[in-house]
Amino acid sequence: MDVLKGAVDFVQNKTKVEVNQRDIEKILSALNSTNHFWEVIFLSQKPFAVVRETINYLISIDFVKTDESGNLILTEKGKEFISANNIPVVKNYTCSYCEGRGIVFSEIKDAYEKFKEIVKTRPDAIVEYDQGYVTEETAFSRIALMIKKGDLVGKRLIVFGDDDLVSIAAALTKLPKEVIVLEIDKRLVEFINQAAKEHNLNLKAIEYDFRNKLPDDFVKSFDTFTIDPPETIEALDLCFTRTISSLKGAGCAGYFGLTNIEASLSKWHEFQKLLLNKFNAVITDIIENFNHYVNWNYLLPSLESSLTFVNVQPKLNWYTSSMYRIELVKDVDIKNEFINCELYIDNEAILYKEN
Amino acid sequence: MDVLKGAVDFVQNKTKVEVNQRDIEKILSALNSTNHFWEVIFLSQKPFAVVRETINYLISIDFVKTDESGNLILTEKGKEFISANNIPVVKNYTCSYCEGRGIVFSEIKDAYEKFKEIVKTRPDAIVEYDQGYVTEETAFSRIALMIKKGDLVGKRLIVFGDDDLVSIAAALTKLPKEVIVLEIDKRLVEFINQAAKEHNLNLKAIEYDFRNKLPDDFVKSFDTFTIDPPETIEALDLCFTRTISSLKGAGCAGYFGLTNIEASLSKWHEFQKLLLNKFNAVITDIIENFNHYVNWNYLLPSLESSLTFVNVQPKLNWYTSSMYRIELVKDVDIKNEFINCELYIDNEAILYKEN
Repeated sequence: MDVLKGAVDFVQNKTKVEVNQRDIEKILSALNSTNHFWEVIFLSQKPFAVVRETINYLISIDFVKTDESGNLILTEKGKEFISANNIPVVKNYTCSYCEGRGIVFSEIKDAYEKFKEIVKTRPDAIVEYDQGYVTEETAFSRIALMIKKGDLVGKRLIVFGDDDLVSIAAALTKLPKEVIVLEIDKRLVEFINQAAKEHNLNLKAIEYDFRNKLPDDFVKSFDTFTIDPPETIEALDLCFTRTISSLKGAGCAGYFGLTNIEASLSKWHEFQKLLLNKFNAVITDIIENFNHYVNWNYLLPSLESSLTFVNVQPKLNWYTSSMYRIELVKDVDIKNEFINCELYIDNEAILYKEN
Repeated sequence: MDVLKGAVDFVQNKTKVEVNQRDIEKILSALNSTNHFWEVIFLSQKPFAVVRETINYLISIDFVKTDESGNLILTEKGKEFISANNIPVVKNYTCSYCEGRGIVFSEIKDAYEKFKEIVKTRPDAIVEYDQGYVTEETAFSRIALMIKKGDLVGKRLIVFGDDDLVSIAAALTKLPKEVIVLEIDKRLVEFINQAAKEHNLNLKAIEYDFRNKLPDDFVKSFDTFTIDPPETIEALDLCFTRTISSLKGAGCAGYFGLTNIEASLSKWHEFQKLLLNKFNAVITDIIENFNHYVNWNYLLPSLESSLTFVNVQPKLNWYTSSMYRIELVKDVDIKNEFINCELYIDNEAILYKEN
């Protein structure tokens, strides 16, 4: 019996996500390094559903068992396979000084301290808009990256959806010429505008649903955008139709996070083709695990899972994403019109439920 | 007079490289931060010829002057423009602990110490094969990245061209199953095989010219490749025809450096399309300035430049490249045959001479 091949067939059939034997190997490697489900996802960087079903398969062939607390434990049979196939423990060589991002933001520490005060009263993340916000360190690392790359100082920045509150972080540095936020959630629009007023920031939030056309005066109007898009291909296509439309032209830049947790590498591939072929953008940076998300309260209830290993409270900020920076290489003409589409759920989404 | 537009027209006309106003801004920002030509290239991350001709233009409109040592100095007129247009000093937020790479290699320090001993007698970089090798820290950071990503332990690694000697670094860790090097330069083939013999490494170098077909038993035979390709589109197409052919299939990975110095973002765009559309590869990581190259002796003689600001010895390791990691998402069938092409020179190459 070929274990890896068996797992690939089982997982692919269950999830309808493209899977290969090296994906299974990486999940085994993660199981060789931790017994905590959410850390297996973090270490393997494979889609949620792929990790879950791989574990279900490994349990079915007696490679893994769970204890009453939901811990995942390799059996003797599992250990033998791992040893015979030279599957290593995951090595964490991440630089602890910069959390692996490669940049530090000590020069904008004052703004960071103010930011931490302001966000203490931020609205909770809610499931309705697929929310979940990044850590304060992440927000400021993103700002530092923009400054380093020449995309913030004296520039017009537009933030598409901002439960992360990076608009406030950017405005607090006093470096951008102007910051505009388009956000669907009224609570956030109010929170951001209130902060702008109290702290005298050159920052304005406007209520906006991505499906609507971009306000006309925002078309070809900004130097830089940032977004944390939902990860269905439809949502990505829609989001980049809006974000790219907002840029002035060649040389302007965009920043966004993309996970391996809700987007398989096959989806990455399809999405990268969109960026390059449809939107005339080049990818200049992809920094793994740059964005760390704070655990959100609705995770376990929203999953409605009957699996004990899934129903455990995460012990770490397991949900991370890669930081992308793209740059327009040529101007591109995009129709500015209403587009209807499903934003949040496909078969790779954490919230996807089998029928 | 619009300075930025004037510069774009002049530089584009001189270099035939696509340039936009933000490129010129970034070069001005670099000139606002250093007076050393090679550091202007490093800080602006724009192609050599684009930086050189932008400076020539700025000298012609009395924004910049040079002193007798070749230093570049902003004039009052230049300073006024920079101030009026809010062009900042370049901020170096790079993490000093990991040199911005995001990873550390302390766990493989023993191999690193041995490596430093071995490479003391390495062959010099020569112009004939467009050589120029990375620092020892770079080589080991690359190995650490491969280990972290699950691409080295127990894997078959192939190195295409190895003046960097990363094959020796990889083999010294004793982690890969096997390391093979294909290299055109006889001196390097001998050096690597000699090191393998002396240090009992599972490593073999073979003389090979990229234009020849891949040895048949190397087709679909490796888990991981690494390469530092020449940066003409023809060379990139050829190199990836060979490297991708060597991989077993979906989930296998490739590592390589690509500069902004000899490859404009328009070329990056064209090349990324090749990777995605022709080779079924997805880009998983792009880490800026990961690869630092040791200054090579033939630089100034080979340029034959009459410009005083170019004819200065570099004061820093100015030549850097981004580290790419790609992964095959689908198997791809590539014809294995002889291909003839120009490898090293196009209009973005440092060694390009106008006729």
